[in-house]
Amino acid sequence: MKLWKKNTDSLKEVETFTVGKDREMDEYLAPFDVLGSLAHIQMLESVGLLKKEELTELQKALRSIYADIKKGDFQLQEDVEDIHSQVEVLLTQRIGEAGKKIHSARSRNDQVLVDLKLFLRSEIEQTVKAILPFFELLQTQSEKYKMFLFPGYTHLQLAMPSSFGLWFGAYAESLVDDLISLKAAYDIINKNPLGSAAGYGSSFPINRTLTTQLLGFSTLNYNVVYAQMGRGKAERVVAQALANIADTLSRMSMDATLYLNQNFSFISFPPELTTGSSIMPHKKNPDVFELIRSHCNRIKALPNEITLMTTNLPSGYHRDLQLLKEHLFPAFKVLKDCIEMAGLMLSNIEVKADLLKDEKYKYLFTVDLVNQLVLQGVPFRDAYIQVGRSVEDGTYKVPEHTEIKNPHEGSIQNLCTKAIKDLMDKTIASFDFEAVHTAYGKLLSAE
Amino acid sequence: MKLWKKNTDSLKEVETFTVGKDREMDEYLAPFDVLGSLAHIQMLESVGLLKKEELTELQKALRSIYADIKKGDFQLQEDVEDIHSQVEVLLTQRIGEAGKKIHSARSRNDQVLVDLKLFLRSEIEQTVKAILPFFELLQTQSEKYKMFLFPGYTHLQLAMPSSFGLWFGAYAESLVDDLISLKAAYDIINKNPLGSAAGYGSSFPINRTLTTQLLGFSTLNYNVVYAQMGRGKAERVVAQALANIADTLSRMSMDATLYLNQNFSFISFPPELTTGSSIMPHKKNPDVFELIRSHCNRIKALPNEITLMTTNLPSGYHRDLQLLKEHLFPAFKVLKDCIEMAGLMLSNIEVKADLLKDEKYKYLFTVDLVNQLVLQGVPFRDAYIQVGRSVEDGTYKVPEHTEIKNPHEGSIQNLCTKAIKDLMDKTIASFDFEAVHTAYGKLLSAE
Amino acid sequence: MKLWKKNTDSLKEVETFTVGKDREMDEYLAPFDVLGSLAHIQMLESVGLLKKEELTELQKALRSIYADIKKGDFQLQEDVEDIHSQVEVLLTQRIGEAGKKIHSARSRNDQVLVDLKLFLRSEIEQTVKAILPFFELLQTQSEKYKMFLFPGYTHLQLAMPSSFGLWFGAYAESLVDDLISLKAAYDIINKNPLGSAAGYGSSFPINRTLTTQLLGFSTLNYNVVYAQMGRGKAERVVAQALANIADTLSRMSMDATLYLNQNFSFISFPPELTTGSSIMPHKKNPDVFELIRSHCNRIKALPNEITLMTTNLPSGYHRDLQLLKEHLFPAFKVLKDCIEMAGLMLSNIEVKADLLKDEKYKYLFTVDLVNQLVLQGVPFRDAYIQVGRSVEDGTYKVPEHTEIKNPHEGSIQNLCTKAIKDLMDKTIASFDFEAVHTAYGKLLSAE
Amino acid sequence: MKLWKKNTDSLKEVETFTVGKDREMDEYLAPFDVLGSLAHIQMLESVGLLKKEELTELQKALRSIYADIKKGDFQLQEDVEDIHSQVEVLLTQRIGEAGKKIHSARSRNDQVLVDLKLFLRSEIEQTVKAILPFFELLQTQSEKYKMFLFPGYTHLQLAMPSSFGLWFGAYAESLVDDLISLKAAYDIINKNPLGSAAGYGSSFPINRTLTTQLLGFSTLNYNVVYAQMGRGKAERVVAQALANIADTLSRMSMDATLYLNQNFSFISFPPELTTGSSIMPHKKNPDVFELIRSHCNRIKALPNEITLMTTNLPSGYHRDLQLLKEHLFPAFKVLKDCIEMAGLMLSNIEVKADLLKDEKYKYLFTVDLVNQLVLQGVPFRDAYIQVGRSVEDGTYKVPEHTEIKNPHEGSIQNLCTKAIKDLMDKTIASFDFEAVHTAYGKLLSAE
Repeated sequence: MKLWKKNTDSLKEVETFTVGKDREMDEYLAPFDVLGSLAHIQMLESVGLLKKEELTELQKALRSIYADIKKGDFQLQEDVEDIHSQVEVLLTQRIGEAGKKIHSARSRNDQVLVDLKLFLRSEIEQTVKAILPFFELLQTQSEKYKMFLFPGYTHLQLAMPSSFGLWFGAYAESLVDDLISLKAAYDIINKNPLGSAAGYGSSFPINRTLTTQLLGFSTLNYNVVYAQMGRGKAERVVAQALANIADTLSRMSMDATLYLNQNFSFISFPPELTTGSSIMPHKKNPDVFELIRSHCNRIKALPNEITLMTTNLPSGYHRDLQLLKEHLFPAFKVLKDCIEMAGLMLSNIEVKADLLKDEKYKYLFTVDLVNQLVLQGVPFRDAYIQVGRSVEDGTYKVPEHTEIKNPHEGSIQNLCTKAIKDLMDKTIASFDFEAVHTAYGKLLSAE
Repeated sequence: MKLWKKNTDSLKEVETFTVGKDREMDEYLAPFDVLGSLAHIQMLESVGLLKKEELTELQKALRSIYADIKKGDFQLQEDVEDIHSQVEVLLTQRIGEAGKKIHSARSRNDQVLVDLKLFLRSEIEQTVKAILPFFELLQTQSEKYKMFLFPGYTHLQLAMPSSFGLWFGAYAESLVDDLISLKAAYDIINKNPLGSAAGYGSSFPINRTLTTQLLGFSTLNYNVVYAQMGRGKAERVVAQALANIADTLSRMSMDATLYLNQNFSFISFPPELTTGSSIMPHKKNPDVFELIRSHCNRIKALPNEITLMTTNLPSGYHRDLQLLKEHLFPAFKVLKDCIEMAGLMLSNIEVKADLLKDEKYKYLFTVDLVNQLVLQGVPFRDAYIQVGRSVEDGTYKVPEHTEIKNPHEGSIQNLCTKAIKDLMDKTIASFDFEAVHTAYGKLLSAE
Repeated sequence: MKLWKKNTDSLKEVETFTVGKDREMDEYLAPFDVLGSLAHIQMLESVGLLKKEELTELQKALRSIYADIKKGDFQLQEDVEDIHSQVEVLLTQRIGEAGKKIHSARSRNDQVLVDLKLFLRSEIEQTVKAILPFFELLQTQSEKYKMFLFPGYTHLQLAMPSSFGLWFGAYAESLVDDLISLKAAYDIINKNPLGSAAGYGSSFPINRTLTTQLLGFSTLNYNVVYAQMGRGKAERVVAQALANIADTLSRMSMDATLYLNQNFSFISFPPELTTGSSIMPHKKNPDVFELIRSHCNRIKALPNEITLMTTNLPSGYHRDLQLLKEHLFPAFKVLKDCIEMAGLMLSNIEVKADLLKDEKYKYLFTVDLVNQLVLQGVPFRDAYIQVGRSVEDGTYKVPEHTEIKNPHEGSIQNLCTKAIKDLMDKTIASFDFEAVHTAYGKLLSAE
Repeated sequence: MKLWKKNTDSLKEVETFTVGKDREMDEYLAPFDVLGSLAHIQMLESVGLLKKEELTELQKALRSIYADIKKGDFQLQEDVEDIHSQVEVLLTQRIGEAGKKIHSARSRNDQVLVDLKLFLRSEIEQTVKAILPFFELLQTQSEKYKMFLFPGYTHLQLAMPSSFGLWFGAYAESLVDDLISLKAAYDIINKNPLGSAAGYGSSFPINRTLTTQLLGFSTLNYNVVYAQMGRGKAERVVAQALANIADTLSRMSMDATLYLNQNFSFISFPPELTTGSSIMPHKKNPDVFELIRSHCNRIKALPNEITLMTTNLPSGYHRDLQLLKEHLFPAFKVLKDCIEMAGLMLSNIEVKADLLKDEKYKYLFTVDLVNQLVLQGVPFRDAYIQVGRSVEDGTYKVPEHTEIKNPHEGSIQNLCTKAIKDLMDKTIASFDFEAVHTAYGKLLSAE
């Protein structure tokens, strides 16, 4: 059943092909579609396109549908094309003809757009909320294992002493920057496209500023043509931000699989967090990290996929955009699962102590030796050559006082955990999710 | 239930996360897993690792499972981890202890690999078989609309006369080259990895040449380390070939949406093949072409995704590879659907006649005019300047004899349809799918 | 000449291969390398690693090198490996042994990193400064051509009236969001990595907070391991932001080539801004827009390239990172050129008036007609069906009063140019480039 | 100077922007442009568009230009736009008016296309010729180090014994499959586009079959519209094949950096093939492998870049295509350099013997132990559990007879070097470069 059908139906094959997986994708959008409609009708009434009683009736019905969705009592009927039609069908069933009025001064284009933006905004919030405890875990572990040294590598070659304090802390700080990128995506998508209709506005005397406030948007996508261009762009900028978070996780996972490797043996995990092999009974494989890495690397490919699917399309809506949902929508849950699994692993990590006592790591201290000579007045280049010769002719010895004295900001003995936490808190505070909750509270409450 | 579990189970969360969608993906592999096992056991018996009676019993049971799969009577049980375990469970249920022997001299790594290659080989065959009728349709339409001229553009600017004969024929010929690329992918994946075990071979005295013949592979992935590297590489080269086909379809779809645009109006379609708008009753939208374009552009992003997910992984199996299935496996059906829908559209296309009589297309004939002057002896550069001046000062007129006389190979009046068909036939003939069918026939027949 | 060479030289082939184009890339970094060194030595003196007189001498020499660079009087000598060595060579030539002390408590890793960040920061500033006049041009043209209507398309099918006011304004507003993304990149890279040495800090008692202030960074990359991870990440987040700007330009260029196409003929350009054809004397090709589109689409591929080159590298420096410069560094100039050329084109654009009077555009007003019926009390669905029937049976007529009355925010008659300008101003103000200029002024001034 | 200019010149800025780096790129095409012209004029004479004397004169002049190019005595003059114009200018200088006739029945579009295809064909030949000795080196080293065992990993966890014989041999075999993909690219581009003019053919009675033979193409791009589509497609399919070769090299480089890492220490290199550190005198860094990896990973990003730059362009030439040259053309040399440097490194590699005697590798033999039990009649699952228990309770011992007995095809003791060489020879033989050399010889010889 297509509510807007004309005399001629599409061929069944055409219908099947064009609907594709979109009904499934629409389930992600269901609650947001209702929220968008609640704002829309309140605006319609305010400009005289809906009677007060109609508004009240519609609000009641929509709030009840919203409650059903939240309870899980909602699904698209077999013969209903999409979420927008489904809500309209339910409204008409519940309150009759007035249900049809909800579509005035609105196109499915701006309806999907607003649903999409509300959905993305909500998912970004969930992502931030998943990251925060993981960030805190990384900071806790960083302090806990502050003086657990291990070899730092450059070019994958032994370089200088590093520490688990640095390692955990590095990924914590990485997430701070990732959230800056996520905040930019949030700011770009947190603008109201409703009222742009099919991308060219409407001849109805609508009030877009009102729906902006009602939905808790920070401002409008003013220009209606640009509002329409937000389709594809919203998905891309959010995917870029997800890719940045994913990159932090995938790199950490690469490190973890390497450090768990028996040639390194810096870390281990309880057996119930690793998996075995069908032919090698001794194996304890880091499948969780490998799958985090793989999921995250796939997410890193997403911005390019979206870019490719939207490149060189002239301005104006194209049906191509429908398919952008299919890989992006599930990616939020995948990323959250990865964050949670990384948290599970790192909560249970077993970190080796005294690693640097191993003879094979003695060259890690050459820089220290050079520096000690420099502090004694030897020019750097000469000190470097002197130590280098001792390495080559076998006379090099680990300097006597090898206790780590790296006192500067961000080094082993001065992790700046608090300063990094402050940066994170400031970034998270900038999101202002409360404004959204307040706006939704008003839309959903009886008066 | 994990058949190879040791004393310690993985945490439920770890299990859920690591299994992911893999059970769903395994359903694609089910029949090929049975075929691989049929070859494996026949080889095991030939080298004395299985008794003649055990072989017979196992063959009977496996063929019955194969028949069940083909009938649709097969699915993974709730508590069974993957397709390989499911087949082994069924075998043990049906024939007892002997069912367990099937895993000798084999790892899940080479088992998945061989399943994957058999699956890809089969999907490539299906793809070729979907392309052939579409190619023939394009050639038929090319001949049918041979002299239906329309403007050819360069820089999207009017250039010279083109024709629907050329347009349809161009995409037909494009598919010939796409199949060359698909054939290379076929040749690369049509090599037997079975016996590479976990990527380092086996101490059992197995006969890999025999399984190569039994499964109809063209040759072996000899080196067992390289065989293992085929995971990821097989997916990538096949995805590249799919991307090439997809590019042909997406470009054709772009043309179609442009030519259907009312400013062009070169083509139209019956209303049941287009879709309407929820707010614009006059719309007849080319959603089918837009979705073909979008699906195909997404397929074009797939090789990059696979590349990204496998880049910089050291040699040897990693669990990352599991996720390569999720976007590639469904892509075959998507591409076939796109080919079929493109066929449906182009079978019903309505092509405008006499388009070039429109005054706005008069400049299409300037090249002809220049050429006529050249044939009369005027040097090219001079003829060019002379015609250019007439265009600028408004004295240009369409040359009197505008009938098209492009007699050379591949031009409007000489489409070389037969020659292009010959190229296609030669390419398709090179695949030799029959050898595979014959091999499977033997594996599945009772004697 | 390698200043840090040991007894054994690398093979000539190894040297040629590893240096590659890096000397050329280093020229981009030259002034920033000097600025970084000026901050570094001032800090060294403050912690007692350099004498007051040495500092003064070094400052004088470095400022003179900086002046040479700015005058264009600087290039890498044949036998000098990189910019860092070149500066040290010049210092030693000018002031003798003290020149060698500059390398204390610093590795080439953090030296390149700080150069890179200062360079990126500067290029972002230049990019913002190139965008602003282009944004203003778009707004000016938007107001100038406010009521120059043209058809709006969805699915590339005629949909509803649009306008050049909307078209120019849409791209102006798009740039506002693009700058939000650029600001996030700026915030991520505007953090001081100096002092992270080879990625594991230094045993010298350095003061990283001081160099942070001296170089005008907003804060530090605290964690030294994370500071090192900034290599690759800085390039990626900046490339993402460039890609967003590039997407706006490439889409606008696609529109322009389409609107210039003779079937549309919405716009034209003076002949000196278009190019001709070697065989078609009537051609006036939009090569500038095609090349903007192509350059910008290539820039859109850059984040993926960087991602691919850095994926799955374990933490710690790898030489791979060197090559990230080669496509990113020139991309800033390319993007600026594209912006300027787009500005040149749009300053000289000729826009057709009265386009919608053409009979072929009559269906653009069906939505208006439906809306008028709705305003008269007809339910939307019924109005839609009624107008749809009139289109199908040929009785549809353009509604009598077709003057556009789209009064709401962001629609044809209410472009909200000022509000969009306010958003832009606010975003630009958030960059605070002045703090950087002030810091550099201090570093470079004699007292 | 633009030979085809009309009265109105392009603005200087437009000219600078549109020419870009194309003159530089054209130098790659110079010899091929002359070859294309030699074939074109011979055909022109054969169909009566050129007199016998004119042909002789033109041939003489073109052959002399070709000789100049080969000697390095050729460059684009300041004021000449491109290679095609430069050749025409030289011709006119040398033989007067007849020089202008060369452009008859040809557009710059098909001229660039044929140049591009001849260039790509030549570069593919060079690539094959660079790969062959590298393949042979890998095979030689594979045999030389056949029994130099080292640990094989899965999940980066110790798995089973591997060997340098397997490791070198794996990459040799990988190149065989990469050449299959390169051969497909060769077959796709080895088709003649000349005569397609601006993409719509020509009204001249040209003979495209003749130029096909003269240039040694295997066949024609028949359809002229498709021939034009070859621009972008040729670059993409070749880039895909390069990416496949690059993937083999980058993966090998990843392994090499890992095996050189001190925790692995499987291999080493003479000091003149590694590089040092500016602050760590003990470092011997594998910069060559890191840069091979990075260069190759960038090449792996190229197909996506080309795809992105050409996606959704309607059929017909667009100036966008010009920029495809800039990253692809230099990539051939980069890849060849990488192959040569990899060869230099692997020729000088030092491989550790007796690695597996280290106690930490004892679990590599668990599979062997399981298999021995199986051969003694214990069911696989039971043997697996028995060995697994011994690992867990610490009673596991390396089986007494640990000499490797992996006799099957492709395993440690049976590397199948000859069989893999046969596959390579067969693939290389399929290229038939001789036909091209013969054709060129005829074009360039005086009679």
